[in-house]
Amino acid sequence: MLFHVRMDVHLPPDVDAAPLVAQEKARAIELQQSGEWTHLWRIVGEYANYSIFNVPTNDELHDILSSLPLFPYMKVHVTPLATHPSKI
Amino acid sequence: MLFHVRMDVHLPPDVDAAPLVAQEKARAIELQQSGEWTHLWRIVGEYANYSIFNVPTNDELHDILSSLPLFPYMKVHVTPLATHPSKI
Amino acid sequence: MLFHVRMDVHLPPDVDAAPLVAQEKARAIELQQSGEWTHLWRIVGEYANYSIFNVPTNDELHDILSSLPLFPYMKVHVTPLATHPSKI
Amino acid sequence: MLFHVRMDVHLPPDVDAAPLVAQEKARAIELQQSGEWTHLWRIVGEYANYSIFNVPTNDELHDILSSLPLFPYMKVHVTPLATHPSKI
Amino acid sequence: MLFHVRMDVHLPPDVDAAPLVAQEKARAIELQQSGEWTHLWRIVGEYANYSIFNVPTNDELHDILSSLPLFPYMKVHVTPLATHPSKI
Amino acid sequence: MLFHVRMDVHLPPDVDAAPLVAQEKARAIELQQSGEWTHLWRIVGEYANYSIFNVPTNDELHDILSSLPLFPYMKVHVTPLATHPSKI
Amino acid sequence: MLFHVRMDVHLPPDVDAAPLVAQEKARAIELQQSGEWTHLWRIVGEYANYSIFNVPTNDELHDILSSLPLFPYMKVHVTPLATHPSKI
Amino acid sequence: MLFHVRMDVHLPPDVDAAPLVAQEKARAIELQQSGEWTHLWRIVGEYANYSIFNVPTNDELHDILSSLPLFPYMKVHVTPLATHPSKI
Amino acid sequence: MLFHVRMDVHLPPDVDAAPLVAQEKARAIELQQSGEWTHLWRIVGEYANYSIFNVPTNDELHDILSSLPLFPYMKVHVTPLATHPSKI
Amino acid sequence: MLFHVRMDVHLPPDVDAAPLVAQEKARAIELQQSGEWTHLWRIVGEYANYSIFNVPTNDELHDILSSLPLFPYMKVHVTPLATHPSKI
Repeated sequence: MLFHVRMDVHLPPDVDAAPLVAQEKARAIELQQSGEWTHLWRIVGEYANYSIFNVPTNDELHDILSSLPLFPYMKVHVTPLATHPSKI
Repeated sequence: MLFHVRMDVHLPPDVDAAPLVAQEKARAIELQQSGEWTHLWRIVGEYANYSIFNVPTNDELHDILSSLPLFPYMKVHVTPLATHPSKI
Repeated sequence: MLFHVRMDVHLPPDVDAAPLVAQEKARAIELQQSGEWTHLWRIVGEYANYSIFNVPTNDELHDILSSLPLFPYMKVHVTPLATHPSKI
Repeated sequence: MLFHVRMDVHLPPDVDAAPLVAQEKARAIELQQSGEWTHLWRIVGEYANYSIFNVPTNDELHDILSSLPLFPYMKVHVTPLATHPSKI
Repeated sequence: MLFHVRMDVHLPPDVDAAPLVAQEKARAIELQQSGEWTHLWRIVGEYANYSIFNVPTNDELHDILSSLPLFPYMKVHVTPLATHPSKI
Repeated sequence: MLFHVRMDVHLPPDVDAAPLVAQEKARAIELQQSGEWTHLWRIVGEYANYSIFNVPTNDELHDILSSLPLFPYMKVHVTPLATHPSKI
Repeated sequence: MLFHVRMDVHLPPDVDAAPLVAQEKARAIELQQSGEWTHLWRIVGEYANYSIFNVPTNDELHDILSSLPLFPYMKVHVTPLATHPSKI
Repeated sequence: MLFHVRMDVHLPPDVDAAPLVAQEKARAIELQQSGEWTHLWRIVGEYANYSIFNVPTNDELHDILSSLPLFPYMKVHVTPLATHPSKI
Repeated sequence: MLFHVRMDVHLPPDVDAAPLVAQEKARAIELQQSGEWTHLWRIVGEYANYSIFNVPTNDELHDILSSLPLFPYMKVHVTPLATHPSKI
Repeated sequence: MLFHVRMDVHLPPDVDAAPLVAQEKARAIELQQSGEWTHLWRIVGEYANYSIFNVPTNDELHDILSSLPLFPYMKVHVTPLATHPSKI
């Protein structure tokens, strides 16, 4: 099942961001390789992304998102997607 | 899988509401009996409801919602739900 | 009487969260066991939940919510619910 | 139990308002006399009011509000009230 | 003259709240006793209240509100009220 | 007492605006001459104005505003003003 | 270049929707086949979609969107996308 | 003096748009030729534009904007601009 | 030329406000005496004001506002004003 | 290709702003000289600007914006622009 996710990152200045960002990147690569994180785009001009996730259940999506290293510093909004009638 | 749905109904004055509302009620009862529509509450003071749906996929949820008789006159917002760690 | 409650948790980084979260969980379990907290769902991707409370009065609901260990770090919105005419 | 209610009235130009408004006024007087509608204030400059209702249950409040003659033309928002610790 | 006031309190964690809250309570009691603060309700689930003030002028209302001990930590919104035509 | 008022006019295309606008203008001039309507500015690019009213009571302000010919087609927001401590 | 587009469709009740919707579907299929409209998902519960477009210039994207049969009845929001540093 | 203007056009379906749009275009060209309307860009995907106007006074800007043929069908927002300290 | 300005002041608790506020007051008096700052009202219940400025150019207004001692702690919104057709 | 960008700067009080602001200015001048940053205006009364960028791709725009010295302290919103049909 597909989910549209917007993530906005707000890292406070006093946080040691580098290691977190590196872990986040590693995890994102893992999830892309394992197929859950199917699309990942940077929103131009913002520390934010639009992503599409393909996961079997809501619970798995929440586990994935809430275990992301940057999760404590992110505002996340999830929208469930369905098949569009005009989709070829 | 569980989904939280808010439905706000806006029926234009010139629509013949009675038959639509009756069909909507019949359909809602059907869906409650078949188990998809697990919770249905009226928001006090508003022609709106909070509902919980239990469906296997996003597509099924969309089919259910978009086929509701009042769908053309509703503003609908869907939020996917996961199991809460404190849930007994 | 039923109330729909949304709770968004915002824990500042410098707060010692673990004990607070543990107390919150214990209290939530208590309230579910005693029947006031009837439904508790995690909003996918967010440190937030939708809940339903069944309490006899507004005052009791406020006492329950405002005494939750995480209350000082939560944004809470309460919506009173009524019986829906299509509810079976 | 006390509830704070905001009502914004939007009467389309082609509606025959006079009889509706008269019925609304009569009903409001009835509810004030029977004690449910305890406070009713006009918001300066707006076709809107702030009201306080004293009713035993959510369902009764919804029945009262949704049966008001102007209900189809109103945007209503209900906020449950509790006793304030500084209230004398 | 009557004014509807909403007060949302946001006390930063590092503020010594107890004395402030006690002073606020004492002041609220004073103003209720002297008749300016005529109604005071807790908004269920929130560190916020709806109040009604009866004061002769805008200036007096501002002096009262801006001298409240918690004023620096409050978001306040004031709405002037008029007599409602259906008020008995 | 002074009040800041924003008025946004939304005249539906099928309304015969000219006579209404003329009556509104006449009334506005009356109120300026009698001193209640002390300031009246056009918001650049919008069919809207910022105004300042000087009236003894909230009720009088509401009577003035709600009796304006364009009132049924206006969104009005009123903010009570007090004397600023830096005002010379 | 990639663009994220949200389209919300609001078809007035008195519009003959069927032919429009059919033309829209045909056009959407064309654009998917020609590669500009790369992704098209239905937002669950809403007459809305999230789409991704791959077009060489802003102008081409606007021409495509503004020439869609349903364009007069759509609210469209376009967000330019860039390559995400964690994209594999 | 420079002003940033956003114009969103909402033409009701039953308005005979063609002549209005043609007049609007003619007027826009006139104002660009006479130098007041210095920049005019289409917002991708929307019947809206961002524009920059160079006019000596607020009044002249309002006269220009409010006399545009499409003005009754536009939502306009004006932001005054100043010279940026980093502007070369 | 006239501009409507709203200023909301947010002074962090750890700022030494007194000297800033005193400088702000002195500057405000200066600008009122020199005629740029023509109107200054306190918004009841809020650390905010509505003001009217009369300045020849946008640049001068920005220089005035951005050089106010409290500017770093203020949220400022400027609306250009034009002469209202009903203004006497 | 043209993009409309709004940048709102929020510099925390404890940040050493001067060097950052100087670097930002130098970079802005560079980008204006190299032609990407074609327009840059100060929004009157706000630490914010409206800008127009002319860049070949979304990615280049994001690289430019996200590498600005003040980027970590800015809220940025990008809107893609197309040629307006009335543009001369």
